[in-house]
Amino acid sequence: MRLRLDCAYDGTDFSGWAAQPGLRTCEGVLTEGLSTILRVVQPVRLVVAGRTDAGVHARGQVVHVDVPDEAYAAVVGRSAGAPADALATRLRGILPPDLALTGVREAPAGFDARFSAIWRRYRYRLCDDPAALDPLRRRDTVLLKGPLHREAMNAAARELLGLHDFAAFCRRREGATTIRTLTAYRWERAEDGTLEAEVQADAFCHSMVRALVGAAVAVGQGRLTPAEVGGILMGGTRDGRVKVMPAHGLSLEEVAYPADDLLAARAAQARSRRENPVAAGDSAAAG
Amino acid sequence: MRLRLDCAYDGTDFSGWAAQPGLRTCEGVLTEGLSTILRVVQPVRLVVAGRTDAGVHARGQVVHVDVPDEAYAAVVGRSAGAPADALATRLRGILPPDLALTGVREAPAGFDARFSAIWRRYRYRLCDDPAALDPLRRRDTVLLKGPLHREAMNAAARELLGLHDFAAFCRRREGATTIRTLTAYRWERAEDGTLEAEVQADAFCHSMVRALVGAAVAVGQGRLTPAEVGGILMGGTRDGRVKVMPAHGLSLEEVAYPADDLLAARAAQARSRRENPVAAGDSAAAG
Repeated sequence: MRLRLDCAYDGTDFSGWAAQPGLRTCEGVLTEGLSTILRVVQPVRLVVAGRTDAGVHARGQVVHVDVPDEAYAAVVGRSAGAPADALATRLRGILPPDLALTGVREAPAGFDARFSAIWRRYRYRLCDDPAALDPLRRRDTVLLKGPLHREAMNAAARELLGLHDFAAFCRRREGATTIRTLTAYRWERAEDGTLEAEVQADAFCHSMVRALVGAAVAVGQGRLTPAEVGGILMGGTRDGRVKVMPAHGLSLEEVAYPADDLLAARAAQARSRRENPVAAGDSAAAG
Repeated sequence: MRLRLDCAYDGTDFSGWAAQPGLRTCEGVLTEGLSTILRVVQPVRLVVAGRTDAGVHARGQVVHVDVPDEAYAAVVGRSAGAPADALATRLRGILPPDLALTGVREAPAGFDARFSAIWRRYRYRLCDDPAALDPLRRRDTVLLKGPLHREAMNAAARELLGLHDFAAFCRRREGATTIRTLTAYRWERAEDGTLEAEVQADAFCHSMVRALVGAAVAVGQGRLTPAEVGGILMGGTRDGRVKVMPAHGLSLEEVAYPADDLLAARAAQARSRRENPVAAGDSAAAG
């Protein structure tokens, strides 16, 4: 039985998504919780849509997990209502307050949290005005000396849209492609006065969103022009003027999947693209 | 020189607004910061618009403080721009991250943060849907088993609007009036799925907002009818079915003042009303 789990977390006190020996990670906590509920000896193995770095948050993370039929039946067997709801209730009872399970359902055929995804959307929050500072949001908002010039940041963001080799904004990995399609990137002034970016792509390389934010911030502070950002993109090598911004401003907001009858085809397509040695990217890595 | 300070805080790690020996309070931290910047031997004395309880937050708290002219001139003397900005910058440099100074200005004549106020507005956040839970907002959102019936809660809220003796929703204090004018109270479903109440009155008695929320929650859960809430209000004594809700869902959002030429008259009116033995209320106390 394959389950789809949706979850949200405050990344502050996690050493990122991916399990690491001796560290508190989202994957570790969720694996332990699920394995406890299911009473399995061999821990379950999670597959995630966006492998977020230490300190990065999520409101719309998606995971799949294959659970032994007998173990699943033992948990949900006697419950009224949707069987997965019983498992959700049990799991919520033992998860810590900084990791929330927002949904559990039996996955449709062909579903793969990582390879079936068609796009990921992240948000980044900046406060450039001391008068707009909200201490309750300091865990997911980066404070900068301002003011930032929002229109210039959007002009820089437009230079980056589309299908490109984003090597200049990625931490390079041997044999991994850095070609991605950036489908949305814009800065809005939120009601509370913060600057929020929505950044959407088919997938992101490691630290890519935070570098794309760093490029816009350099323009918003007048240190780079939008055309120079376009030049850095085309140059294909990292540039010291583009900082990788702090993790805590970033959150994974949404992962999108195609209609159920296209899930398997999409997974096959993404997997084949990434198993091609020329384009062996790591789409599961997060911004 | 009288200054008006606007501030915001995450109340989680404060023992409320009011200074208490040996405890970390907003008033204590702000008094210490100001006294340090101004290099005064005798600590300055703050007057606050809403004396929030332990755990209650603020985004729009207002304070006034009278500072010695020489001390003020010594801080702002050499600065370009508005003099108060220099003090704000210095003060922000030493305040902790959970207490933000959102504004400092020289107060207009007749301004009194407590007595000139014409209304206070609080917000309360409830999450009644596990699928809408956002761990990043767990510090200012109360989680309840749901779902709550929003329309019924608004019907209850309407029973409470207007000029009443709110004794049934206040912690009684010897010789203090509990007569207040509740000018707004409504529940909305926020974009993120939480239930948010806006509650506005000329002033609030101690624990009043949290009891008004408790009354609506009892109705939203089907334990009371809106008419029964109206009956409890008229009865004038506390009722065990109305719980005082947890502090951490509450935040002081805004305090409103009249036009500058009416500040002194408003302060005189409020002060006289509260110095009348029959109506010696404590308008500075918070919900």
